[in-house]
Amino acid sequence: MQTGLDTQLVLRPGIIEFGWGHPHPSALPTAAVAAAAASALTNHGADALAYGPEQGPGRLLAQIRARLGRIEGMPPPLAQLMVTGGTSQALDMLCGQLSQPGDVALVEAPTYHLALRIFRDRGLRLVAIPGNGQGLRVDAAEAVLRMLRARGERVAFLYLVPSFGNPSGATLAADRRSALVALAQREGLTVLEDDAYGELWYDAPPPPSLYHLAPGGPVVRLGSYAKVLAPGLRLGWMLAAPELVARCTGSGLLDSGGGVNHFTAMVVASLIEQGGLDAHLEALRAGLRARRDALLAALARYLPNTCTWNPVLGGYFVWVRLPQGFDAEALLPVAEQAGVAYLPGQRFFVGTGGQQYLRLSFSLLPIDQLEEGARRLGGLLKKAQERYSQR
Amino acid sequence: MQTGLDTQLVLRPGIIEFGWGHPHPSALPTAAVAAAAASALTNHGADALAYGPEQGPGRLLAQIRARLGRIEGMPPPLAQLMVTGGTSQALDMLCGQLSQPGDVALVEAPTYHLALRIFRDRGLRLVAIPGNGQGLRVDAAEAVLRMLRARGERVAFLYLVPSFGNPSGATLAADRRSALVALAQREGLTVLEDDAYGELWYDAPPPPSLYHLAPGGPVVRLGSYAKVLAPGLRLGWMLAAPELVARCTGSGLLDSGGGVNHFTAMVVASLIEQGGLDAHLEALRAGLRARRDALLAALARYLPNTCTWNPVLGGYFVWVRLPQGFDAEALLPVAEQAGVAYLPGQRFFVGTGGQQYLRLSFSLLPIDQLEEGARRLGGLLKKAQERYSQR
Repeated sequence: MQTGLDTQLVLRPGIIEFGWGHPHPSALPTAAVAAAAASALTNHGADALAYGPEQGPGRLLAQIRARLGRIEGMPPPLAQLMVTGGTSQALDMLCGQLSQPGDVALVEAPTYHLALRIFRDRGLRLVAIPGNGQGLRVDAAEAVLRMLRARGERVAFLYLVPSFGNPSGATLAADRRSALVALAQREGLTVLEDDAYGELWYDAPPPPSLYHLAPGGPVVRLGSYAKVLAPGLRLGWMLAAPELVARCTGSGLLDSGGGVNHFTAMVVASLIEQGGLDAHLEALRAGLRARRDALLAALARYLPNTCTWNPVLGGYFVWVRLPQGFDAEALLPVAEQAGVAYLPGQRFFVGTGGQQYLRLSFSLLPIDQLEEGARRLGGLLKKAQERYSQR
Repeated sequence: MQTGLDTQLVLRPGIIEFGWGHPHPSALPTAAVAAAAASALTNHGADALAYGPEQGPGRLLAQIRARLGRIEGMPPPLAQLMVTGGTSQALDMLCGQLSQPGDVALVEAPTYHLALRIFRDRGLRLVAIPGNGQGLRVDAAEAVLRMLRARGERVAFLYLVPSFGNPSGATLAADRRSALVALAQREGLTVLEDDAYGELWYDAPPPPSLYHLAPGGPVVRLGSYAKVLAPGLRLGWMLAAPELVARCTGSGLLDSGGGVNHFTAMVVASLIEQGGLDAHLEALRAGLRARRDALLAALARYLPNTCTWNPVLGGYFVWVRLPQGFDAEALLPVAEQAGVAYLPGQRFFVGTGGQQYLRLSFSLLPIDQLEEGARRLGGLLKKAQERYSQR
């Protein structure tokens, strides 16, 4: 019987793929996970394979709290924490708890395009709030929220990626974080803080998380092991008001199946107990920092000087702005012909927007390919620019 | 920092717990999973930790197809198959694909009580179809379906556990299986076949699955590794019409996160490749058969002869019928005082019903406790019967 692929990633021969926000295989901690799996099954065998507690195994909850305590000064109360099946599972679960079909979800423009698909599958209507280099514009969020509520709309939540955001790499400035939390408290607005990239800083950590500004309040913080360990684990955690955690852990889904991904949660608990997370993260940051530096240097070298991009202080992405009049979606087939691919900016916007942008991910490719990809991209952009200026 | 429990199971000292449909820790294949995890990470390390394909890893899909082919004569087409995060996750996902809040779900009475919680969380209204010793009454299903549709109700699906059902242990007879599939085809009714226990037969296999009667048709068959390997894996599979599989694999949730529980899926693929599933299942059946025999013998010995139960040909449960006038829910605190617990029949019914029944699970307890539990239950039932007859 023919066997299909074992991974989601599909690489096309001859094309340098800047499109995938996936880690390079060599960046995955296979040895540490193997050691952790052996330890979990040797020391906690039956407990690792039984139905898990709805909140997650006590061993992993303890490690998450200890680590957040070390980084942020105080461990979160246990009642505010639960283990998730990664951010995608958590977003789907939260839609079920916080929304009904037809409700509005406020989302940053641009934002993580596949979160939008999860919200749409749940019947939510998406309304975009503009952002800029400092992240979401909180004044715009307030105006839109009031306008919608004045019209009788039910706003389920606001979703954003405040640190090294996908796709723009922008980080919400500290003063905007305070302003957003104050708005959320004042208006009774739930904020979903997708913190997938917060630990992937290459120069200095981002400002304290939104959740940290009002623990147990209106912010739901979603942490993930997808970017700091491995996406195939499908594991993460959530910090939220105790009432919301209790509603999630009390759901029929978790009552029936026990905690999500229990075996994997027990393996990751062992990995963290063995010091494997901090060791891996250090090496991971160094590797990604080198990739970022290489890609930014190559872009500066090869792209026409009509292209711009923001500083990249963390995460996976460079958000390139093309000259006026360019259309990133229309240009993609041309780029693929030239042996380079990216994600067009349009895909990260609700409705229209983003034509002039493209997202380049530097997480997957080795440095020589990052450089060659930038060279190919620069070449085709220069050609396109010539054609455009001859019109 | 205090560490909480690592399992969902909580045992109360002094009480013999017939309530939990969980496996005994010694029945969990810790060594086989450890060997499989080591193999998956040694031979497929990066592939096991990357984002997985939405349908599930090719290696596991191939093993599922090969095994079903061996058991049932022909492997199912790949387009009809996907990996799930266990039956609970699959039911939640299917609710999202097949229903809207306010729709009706038809369920057998009695049926798996926690599936009912998943359906209710999705806003479904539950309508019960009576069953008996031969399983669901198909004539009643047809009458109820027509009545509901005549009233303009939208019926999303019919859910049942046709083989060694939870809680009654009943198996849908072969002629009723044909009749149910014919009804589903005739009326355009989707049938969710929860096949969690089909492989746990102790005397002879159950009749062919509903799905097998009309592959790719109106039946969705849910297989699970929870009962044949370990519940903490949170892994299973689904067979369905290719269009429905495509809708599920095309969802935003799987696009964003990749296949559910990918790492665990790669581990289980290795376990099956190594022959671990069939070896474990053989031993598991032998152990459960011995437990069943011991419990049935003890019930025959200790329970008043006014109690009855059906033959138990597979699965986890004995469904005991108490004498007329008993109320299993009201009796539970008395039983716990006497050091024995069970699940009252009422919990498995939508609305009213089941007062005279209790569910005993023989999966968790060692044989001496099964016998002692039956002795305690018999003692208290005899006392209750005396009190009742003196009224």
